[in-house]
Amino acid sequence: MKKTVLLMQCPDKPGIVARLSEFIFKHGANIISSDQHSTDPQGGRFFMRVVFALDEQNVPKEDFESDWEATAVDLGAEYSIHYLDQRMRMGILVSKYDHCLADLLYRVRAGDLNAQIPMVISNHEDARDMVERHDIPFHCVPVSKETKLEAERSILGLVKESTDFLVLARYMQVISDGFLGAYGKDIINIHHSFLPSFKGANPYRQAYDRGVKVIGATAHYATAALDEGPIIEQEVERVYYKDSVTDLMRKGATLERITLANAIRAHTEHRIIRFGQKTIVFQ
Amino acid sequence: MKKTVLLMQCPDKPGIVARLSEFIFKHGANIISSDQHSTDPQGGRFFMRVVFALDEQNVPKEDFESDWEATAVDLGAEYSIHYLDQRMRMGILVSKYDHCLADLLYRVRAGDLNAQIPMVISNHEDARDMVERHDIPFHCVPVSKETKLEAERSILGLVKESTDFLVLARYMQVISDGFLGAYGKDIINIHHSFLPSFKGANPYRQAYDRGVKVIGATAHYATAALDEGPIIEQEVERVYYKDSVTDLMRKGATLERITLANAIRAHTEHRIIRFGQKTIVFQ
Amino acid sequence: MKKTVLLMQCPDKPGIVARLSEFIFKHGANIISSDQHSTDPQGGRFFMRVVFALDEQNVPKEDFESDWEATAVDLGAEYSIHYLDQRMRMGILVSKYDHCLADLLYRVRAGDLNAQIPMVISNHEDARDMVERHDIPFHCVPVSKETKLEAERSILGLVKESTDFLVLARYMQVISDGFLGAYGKDIINIHHSFLPSFKGANPYRQAYDRGVKVIGATAHYATAALDEGPIIEQEVERVYYKDSVTDLMRKGATLERITLANAIRAHTEHRIIRFGQKTIVFQ
Amino acid sequence: MKKTVLLMQCPDKPGIVARLSEFIFKHGANIISSDQHSTDPQGGRFFMRVVFALDEQNVPKEDFESDWEATAVDLGAEYSIHYLDQRMRMGILVSKYDHCLADLLYRVRAGDLNAQIPMVISNHEDARDMVERHDIPFHCVPVSKETKLEAERSILGLVKESTDFLVLARYMQVISDGFLGAYGKDIINIHHSFLPSFKGANPYRQAYDRGVKVIGATAHYATAALDEGPIIEQEVERVYYKDSVTDLMRKGATLERITLANAIRAHTEHRIIRFGQKTIVFQ
Repeated sequence: MKKTVLLMQCPDKPGIVARLSEFIFKHGANIISSDQHSTDPQGGRFFMRVVFALDEQNVPKEDFESDWEATAVDLGAEYSIHYLDQRMRMGILVSKYDHCLADLLYRVRAGDLNAQIPMVISNHEDARDMVERHDIPFHCVPVSKETKLEAERSILGLVKESTDFLVLARYMQVISDGFLGAYGKDIINIHHSFLPSFKGANPYRQAYDRGVKVIGATAHYATAALDEGPIIEQEVERVYYKDSVTDLMRKGATLERITLANAIRAHTEHRIIRFGQKTIVFQ
Repeated sequence: MKKTVLLMQCPDKPGIVARLSEFIFKHGANIISSDQHSTDPQGGRFFMRVVFALDEQNVPKEDFESDWEATAVDLGAEYSIHYLDQRMRMGILVSKYDHCLADLLYRVRAGDLNAQIPMVISNHEDARDMVERHDIPFHCVPVSKETKLEAERSILGLVKESTDFLVLARYMQVISDGFLGAYGKDIINIHHSFLPSFKGANPYRQAYDRGVKVIGATAHYATAALDEGPIIEQEVERVYYKDSVTDLMRKGATLERITLANAIRAHTEHRIIRFGQKTIVFQ
Repeated sequence: MKKTVLLMQCPDKPGIVARLSEFIFKHGANIISSDQHSTDPQGGRFFMRVVFALDEQNVPKEDFESDWEATAVDLGAEYSIHYLDQRMRMGILVSKYDHCLADLLYRVRAGDLNAQIPMVISNHEDARDMVERHDIPFHCVPVSKETKLEAERSILGLVKESTDFLVLARYMQVISDGFLGAYGKDIINIHHSFLPSFKGANPYRQAYDRGVKVIGATAHYATAALDEGPIIEQEVERVYYKDSVTDLMRKGATLERITLANAIRAHTEHRIIRFGQKTIVFQ
Repeated sequence: MKKTVLLMQCPDKPGIVARLSEFIFKHGANIISSDQHSTDPQGGRFFMRVVFALDEQNVPKEDFESDWEATAVDLGAEYSIHYLDQRMRMGILVSKYDHCLADLLYRVRAGDLNAQIPMVISNHEDARDMVERHDIPFHCVPVSKETKLEAERSILGLVKESTDFLVLARYMQVISDGFLGAYGKDIINIHHSFLPSFKGANPYRQAYDRGVKVIGATAHYATAALDEGPIIEQEVERVYYKDSVTDLMRKGATLERITLANAIRAHTEHRIIRFGQKTIVFQ
């Protein structure tokens, strides 16, 4: 039995659930869970996530996939099919702050995330020791204004084939549109503020100066517009007048770790559908 | 178009979603949203909530209901069907603390809950003025040890036919098993602690004495065992060393209002399935 | 015994606490609680809140106040003295959304806030009934582009002498700088977003369109710059993909009520010191 | 300048703050922050934490301490004095679950806690590799029913002199009263439930079976009565019907890490005063 996830979206119309569930039933698979959402029952958009157990003895996954393709075309559906026995290959980029990296290394080793880490890339040497002690390859690709293009080409060469998605775990370089397009897969970034507040540099300093009473962290898909991509997850925590900027950074570091880990969990469990500026994150 | 909710549970087996969604499709209804949960895909229990738009011009609801009955019997399903254009009739029982009552009166008048209030019953006169200013009938049914049975008979006479469910909005009398059985519909209670901590009397005093750092409130279905019924909703809030018992009561009062309102919202939107000691609350 | 609060701020230097506590001790008062904060022990700013029981038999408050004045001048301190047996007079301005108003009316009547409400003013008639049922005077002062100046003059006439501070409980008119200056006391506003995100109109629609996963409400002191005043309190709540703009407004309404009530509690208990763009809120 | 913390408690009476602050001022020290709390201004108990900068050039700390002793005796005060330039020596005991251990190792190395780790002790070998990679001594002291007494003697020998306090970071052995007495310093335990709910074994299973909607973790000082010691910190998180016992354990592991780290931060910053069953945790 192969635990399988189907994510799909299409224009809404009557009968989609019936057609989809009959399709699954006729292919000898049993639905384990399903979530469905419509933005508007009258002519809106239809979103669905179905988890089912596929009996590969009877129906090879290639057959299932090719059969489904015909139905999807007919429904005008965008979709993706994922097999939960495959750990996603997560490439990590990091700069000097290593709290998110340390957390992800621990979680992956502990089996807490459905992911493996084929490599970690940094523009600094600082994290090498931590990474290599986990027997994971570490590549240092320094970046300067002059070498940015070249550096991105090096990174692309490292990750293009060997990763399923990238995580910017406090990687303090802006990713170019060219890289985004050339990589062509999902990139998850953690921003150390409660977006859309405090975009750009030094968000904890900005939060301190503004005197907010709650700070946050935001995990989102990276897009061409900086800190504007579809939000996956946000976490917040209360701060007090006694908290200095340093305290905000410390509290925020814990928020960032949790927010990023939750976003990666949702991504690797195939619970996210992107549409436009937004995400649907099924629970 | 009649917005309709079907709640069902049955033993799990392949094909239930397909059968159900085909049934709905063939009756000319369009699924607006559906949530499905299985405790265990191999021989567990299957739970589902489907919201759909029923076209009464083509399929009268009586026909839909009787057709469904046959399918349900075949699946061994327990189910209930609800029409969202019918505001549920919510009877409220209250004693002296009136913060939950005041909140519910406001929310119902503001259209924030899919409910109406046919009456409020209390063992004290204190709330009469507040209730009658909302043009809602108020009945005072005093209770003493000697008159408890008689009082419950009076209450039963008032609510049995005219309410769909009852809310104990800080009603400080224990409801007898006899009443629970005779009423035969759902009763929602708000307990002023984070159950199962601090059952029984004076939970805020108990919490203060124990020195907890977080307090809570719990809304649950009333059952024969005091404070042991299926939990619907819990909310919590942080407390500090400066907080006295009175502060805990004040903070707790806000928690109780929110917790009870959220539980009633879930109940009146037919998002709850009870099973055994527990509830599934679909979002 | 008169429960008294002293709020003060001054340039930091050694010995301030000693001098202040000796002053209080020598005037026969007993310190009940004290909180002190320094932005920077080396040449920063010193903030303190002291609550003490003043024995008016021995030291009349007028004597205490004039004695203290000399010390304060010497320390270069800004300060204010408050007596907790005086309920602050809170004027409320409201437009059509009445959830914060209803909450404040309930809380004041229940004794949950150290405040009284001498009047409610609105640019609409909608809330008259709710207010007058609480035996509180209601004034309708309509506002249009042409009459704005005149309307503010009318409001000023109503509140200038009879209130200690104002609350904008979802009052949808921008208060002019002229009014702020002429009134000269604190004005607390509730903004229905997690500032600085989503300033201005329709913040829930903005939040929905941006796809945030957490929404918030912010209570702040009104200043000349719209939605830029010192923040007093913020509360947040998680939202889900199923939540429509209407759901955000409903969830937000509960947040607004709690946030505003907490801010008013802090203000009326004299736990807030303003400095520049920020507040210190002692607990 | 030596950053110093004084924690004290004594019977309340007028003039304590004046006397204490004058004492500090006369010894040439500048108060950086102070927090004071009275359970009841009329004959209650007085608690205070003062942070000040001691000028050792002028007043050696030995002189300060002996001078203070006399004042403390006079006030009937229990107190302790701490110097923030001394990192506390934290001994860690762990069994098989290593998420709290991994978090503490990271935080100490990152300088996020005012502590050092002289050793880690476990009744299993599992964590050896993780600990030794941080260049921290690891001792395996197996425990069985028969060897419990002997094992505790071994542990005592290891920690008695070389640690300032102990952390039970998911150490699954009950500490005997004898050990508590012989060690004589603070021991912090993390319990994986929202105490007082779900004491004892398998709290996540208990929580799942009861159907709670929020789970928690509790850090407390260990005492003779199991899971009954003074609570330092509690954190909570929402759970859903889809969450299995395994999901609760996973969510709870994150809670445990945060709760324990926050408790240790408060302890090592000398912000906690114990009295009876309870703690005061200054912020």
